[in-house]
Amino acid sequence: MGPMEKNRLEAFSDGVLAIIITIMVLELKVPHGIELSALRPLLPVFSSYILSFVYIGIYWNNHHHMLYTTRHVSGGILWANLHLLFWLSLFPFTTGWMGENHFAPTPTAIYGVVLLMAAVAYYILQRAIIARQGPQALLAKAIGRDWKGKLSPVLYFAAIPSAFLNPWISHGIYIFVALIWLIPDRRIERTLTDRH
Amino acid sequence: MGPMEKNRLEAFSDGVLAIIITIMVLELKVPHGIELSALRPLLPVFSSYILSFVYIGIYWNNHHHMLYTTRHVSGGILWANLHLLFWLSLFPFTTGWMGENHFAPTPTAIYGVVLLMAAVAYYILQRAIIARQGPQALLAKAIGRDWKGKLSPVLYFAAIPSAFLNPWISHGIYIFVALIWLIPDRRIERTLTDRH
Amino acid sequence: MGPMEKNRLEAFSDGVLAIIITIMVLELKVPHGIELSALRPLLPVFSSYILSFVYIGIYWNNHHHMLYTTRHVSGGILWANLHLLFWLSLFPFTTGWMGENHFAPTPTAIYGVVLLMAAVAYYILQRAIIARQGPQALLAKAIGRDWKGKLSPVLYFAAIPSAFLNPWISHGIYIFVALIWLIPDRRIERTLTDRH
Amino acid sequence: MGPMEKNRLEAFSDGVLAIIITIMVLELKVPHGIELSALRPLLPVFSSYILSFVYIGIYWNNHHHMLYTTRHVSGGILWANLHLLFWLSLFPFTTGWMGENHFAPTPTAIYGVVLLMAAVAYYILQRAIIARQGPQALLAKAIGRDWKGKLSPVLYFAAIPSAFLNPWISHGIYIFVALIWLIPDRRIERTLTDRH
Repeated sequence: MGPMEKNRLEAFSDGVLAIIITIMVLELKVPHGIELSALRPLLPVFSSYILSFVYIGIYWNNHHHMLYTTRHVSGGILWANLHLLFWLSLFPFTTGWMGENHFAPTPTAIYGVVLLMAAVAYYILQRAIIARQGPQALLAKAIGRDWKGKLSPVLYFAAIPSAFLNPWISHGIYIFVALIWLIPDRRIERTLTDRH
Repeated sequence: MGPMEKNRLEAFSDGVLAIIITIMVLELKVPHGIELSALRPLLPVFSSYILSFVYIGIYWNNHHHMLYTTRHVSGGILWANLHLLFWLSLFPFTTGWMGENHFAPTPTAIYGVVLLMAAVAYYILQRAIIARQGPQALLAKAIGRDWKGKLSPVLYFAAIPSAFLNPWISHGIYIFVALIWLIPDRRIERTLTDRH
Repeated sequence: MGPMEKNRLEAFSDGVLAIIITIMVLELKVPHGIELSALRPLLPVFSSYILSFVYIGIYWNNHHHMLYTTRHVSGGILWANLHLLFWLSLFPFTTGWMGENHFAPTPTAIYGVVLLMAAVAYYILQRAIIARQGPQALLAKAIGRDWKGKLSPVLYFAAIPSAFLNPWISHGIYIFVALIWLIPDRRIERTLTDRH
Repeated sequence: MGPMEKNRLEAFSDGVLAIIITIMVLELKVPHGIELSALRPLLPVFSSYILSFVYIGIYWNNHHHMLYTTRHVSGGILWANLHLLFWLSLFPFTTGWMGENHFAPTPTAIYGVVLLMAAVAYYILQRAIIARQGPQALLAKAIGRDWKGKLSPVLYFAAIPSAFLNPWISHGIYIFVALIWLIPDRRIERTLTDRH
């Protein structure tokens, strides 16, 4: 689908991600009390919000880098991108459900299922872009062995059953994965800088 | 209306479509239970959400291709575009009504009415662009016989009364039409590639 | 404020207008019944929604044309623009209040107050742009005598007290003003086309 | 992170700010009465909305100017920006809580906490940009002694405990700080104009 430019794909994705990240805050319902203690029941929702905010930030950041290496998008890339946005659009729901139930086992596991599906969707999108760029794919070089991209789904997969043992194990895994991504990814950066 | 650039029309449409696709997820109300069974009543809403997400994705995709062939927009094109966005903006409402009532006949029929009106609005927008491009219209060549664009409204039209016989017939039609659009449209692509 | 480019002003305004136009649809609450009659109580809300959708469309259209004539924006223009967006952001509120109360006198009058304030804010923004462009202002030539811009606030002003006589008079005025704006404004267009 | 362009950072920030500014209006719940008196209980929410609207407008304005001086963004700048957006995303919550409780002490103090944290986040973002631009940083020259940026957090810090003496002191401080920012900031402007 040669003529499709990536600009509008980026603009649309930015719009959806901006809305997702902001809509999550609507789960922070204004409390009825006027004391500081009225905020206490909101703490789990608030900490879930922080976690999901960081995750959407990571996705936005990586998405930006990934699309930077590509120029034209095919129909396959477009739908792989919508597939990713679909799973990310469920973040406000799973964030709210996990937070409002104080990290109960099932909501915590379902939160991990959506994280896992988003990671898989991201991987598919990455493969679709590399497939289009051909064997000399700039993105393929940039991501290299892609250990973060391969480790994350494995960890999410482990976090899902762990929630039924102890939800805090899952929660620890979610935070750990977020942290390994927060460390700036110098791979794509370096490859691209070399090119310039 | 010579001076109007299409960029802002695209940006505004992207914004509206991004909000529509994301706002629909708000109908997925966070359940009160903490068991997996608490998600069961949400399944019809969730499957309606998937269907509408795919439809908005298709509209965004086709809209993108259609505007790619044009450069300047007239006042008529602008209002034809707003008319299309109006019908698409009703998707969250009809999706929620159909999903929350487990595909009852009337909500399923009304869902089809909005699909039909959006298809008609899309057709009007397409004619407005072709009218402006003149007899050698690039878009006219690109869409060719436009069998998908002509078949879809007919099928929606059939799906509306069918909902009162059996809503699943209508639902099957809605899924079928989505699938014929999901197959990437190589017509516009080919015509434009030839040009380059 | 020489360096400020208008692109980001447009992008921000487009975002706000896209959200306003889409958020209004949230007032169309999904009904509990599954019969067609369940939609009947929504008809006033729905017709208010159409009216406001058209108004936001008109503002977006005119805003686009107005900014087309300018290149750099001053701090004054920026705040005049935010002032306009402020009044437009109240549309979802007044639309919902008027619609849910079946066009009762006070909500209908308040709807007119917000229309009036938005028209005044638009006029201020227009003057700020002309002031910056200087005596040879392209926009000043383009709008000419600006009879629509001057007539609209007068009509809104008349519609506000009329609501207490009969809300339908006000409603008729609101529709009438929308119609005179829907007729494409060939003035700016013509002036700009001459320039090219 | 050389290759990252600032355009998408701006677009994403614009999207988030546009949504925040518009979502706040959803706290203005449509009243049930149809008399003008039905609006009276909404007055505190409405005046909180105006205050927060102005603050988001100021942040958008300053953010625009700040990014104007930079070209490429590093990973650190990106996360400093997301950190700022995080605190701004809490505005709808604190605005609603303060407004619905008629400026009770605790909600008024918490409103100040979020203002303070946003100011700190803005300062961090500013330092991150200057650090990247190096000793000759254009932004460093542009902001000069940055007395507004240094005074604001001090005033917010004073406003937080004051809320427990009398919330109106805090409210007065919030309005005062907004006013000193509303006065157009000619520093960056002048520095940049000199460059041209």
